[in-house]
Amino acid sequence: MSIHPRAESLRIREQLTKHVQSGVVSLAGLIAHGRGEAFDYLLGEETRQSALNAIKVSAGALLIAKKPVLSVNGNVAALCSRELVELAEATGAKLEVNLYHRFPGRDSAIEKLLKEAGAREVLGVGEAASAQIDEVHSDRRKVDPEGILISDTVFVPLEDGDRTEALRRMGKTVIAVDLNPLSRTAQLASITIVDNIVRAMPLLVSEAKKLKSRSLEELRKEVASFDNREALSDAMRAMEERLRDLSFKGVYIDLHGNK
Amino acid sequence: MSIHPRAESLRIREQLTKHVQSGVVSLAGLIAHGRGEAFDYLLGEETRQSALNAIKVSAGALLIAKKPVLSVNGNVAALCSRELVELAEATGAKLEVNLYHRFPGRDSAIEKLLKEAGAREVLGVGEAASAQIDEVHSDRRKVDPEGILISDTVFVPLEDGDRTEALRRMGKTVIAVDLNPLSRTAQLASITIVDNIVRAMPLLVSEAKKLKSRSLEELRKEVASFDNREALSDAMRAMEERLRDLSFKGVYIDLHGNK
Repeated sequence: MSIHPRAESLRIREQLTKHVQSGVVSLAGLIAHGRGEAFDYLLGEETRQSALNAIKVSAGALLIAKKPVLSVNGNVAALCSRELVELAEATGAKLEVNLYHRFPGRDSAIEKLLKEAGAREVLGVGEAASAQIDEVHSDRRKVDPEGILISDTVFVPLEDGDRTEALRRMGKTVIAVDLNPLSRTAQLASITIVDNIVRAMPLLVSEAKKLKSRSLEELRKEVASFDNREALSDAMRAMEERLRDLSFKGVYIDLHGNK
Repeated sequence: MSIHPRAESLRIREQLTKHVQSGVVSLAGLIAHGRGEAFDYLLGEETRQSALNAIKVSAGALLIAKKPVLSVNGNVAALCSRELVELAEATGAKLEVNLYHRFPGRDSAIEKLLKEAGAREVLGVGEAASAQIDEVHSDRRKVDPEGILISDTVFVPLEDGDRTEALRRMGKTVIAVDLNPLSRTAQLASITIVDNIVRAMPLLVSEAKKLKSRSLEELRKEVASFDNREALSDAMRAMEERLRDLSFKGVYIDLHGNK
């Protein structure tokens, strides 16, 4: 057992806290990241086979979509701007900033990050987020009429359940990345990738590049046969098992200091 | 199922983020809070019987201690200053500021909060934290020679495993509050209260007041017969069960939008 949290999770935390100053990451975003860390710990901090499968199907769903959009919030921009741009390029998807808290200047700070990572166009910034989604009670209801509003498939990493449900009711295919398989987002998305965004994004990019050579018909079949219930059940089973495993491995010191 | 996180957890989040500005709560503290939220969710967000038992034994351990100290960090000060002062009064314990990151002015901001809540004396502020604990690699090693250093029992809510182990090696009784029963802190403490600090603190205060009338001998017996393994196992079992329960109750929408 290592004494300190491993270097990788410290690096990610620093990446996020660094972006609090620039306004990209909100304080609520830090708390949300902590929740993710706990679920990732229970998941064993690895991409499970079922998540890899969900990633493949997600890449396919983005490739077969007519109007795919990648929705970008503060945490995802802080952690994965480069991969978001690569995924947009590989799948022909548009990038749109969509935020729970649209603090002044936050959307343009995120646009700046994405442009520095190579994005040519970023939707949903400032006045461009002029359309509204019904039944969403946060700033997430504000969408771009050229983007999420008219999309058929939306990639919503680190989303809230409220908007996931609204987007599904609008008939869109929703792809979520969520470490909590029990969250409303995870439960209500069409395809849920139960994995750490930092591990999932590079895999999603490489799968999208690989699947490009496949026929649309093949991809459509694979997407249609995907069972999200199964993916979620597998993640929950993994967490249950890990809780059981870890509870056997406990390092105790008794009340008198004996290990 | 409610659409928004409940009022109480929003209130707690606001309480913490409010104190980021004053320097009491660190950004790392917000991430740590998120981890706690996830484990609390799995715990069912209630004080279990086993936690209540650990709380009673903890109150007893503080009452029988010769030199009890309550260690105070940013999150605990932001959420429970009043209860910390009440617990110190009920048990004769001293209050000592102890921080993972001792940013300039942070210790005195916490002292101010505690004094506003009625504390007469606060150890570990500024130059007073002049002693060091071996084998602790953060600012947590800096302790007050009048407090933690010479204490026999230390209450360390929301602690790191590193210092918990060091304090145990020094022969002290360590009482931890930790929502993750698998953490090193939870595993290495003498008594672990697996509960939300916000629920546990008022209970700890009322138990300490109640147990004051009991004889030291009686209290000593109860503390000596406490089995921390059992307390931790119960919490882990509860989480496993809840994962199983919730996974049966899933609300899915299939790929075509049917609930």
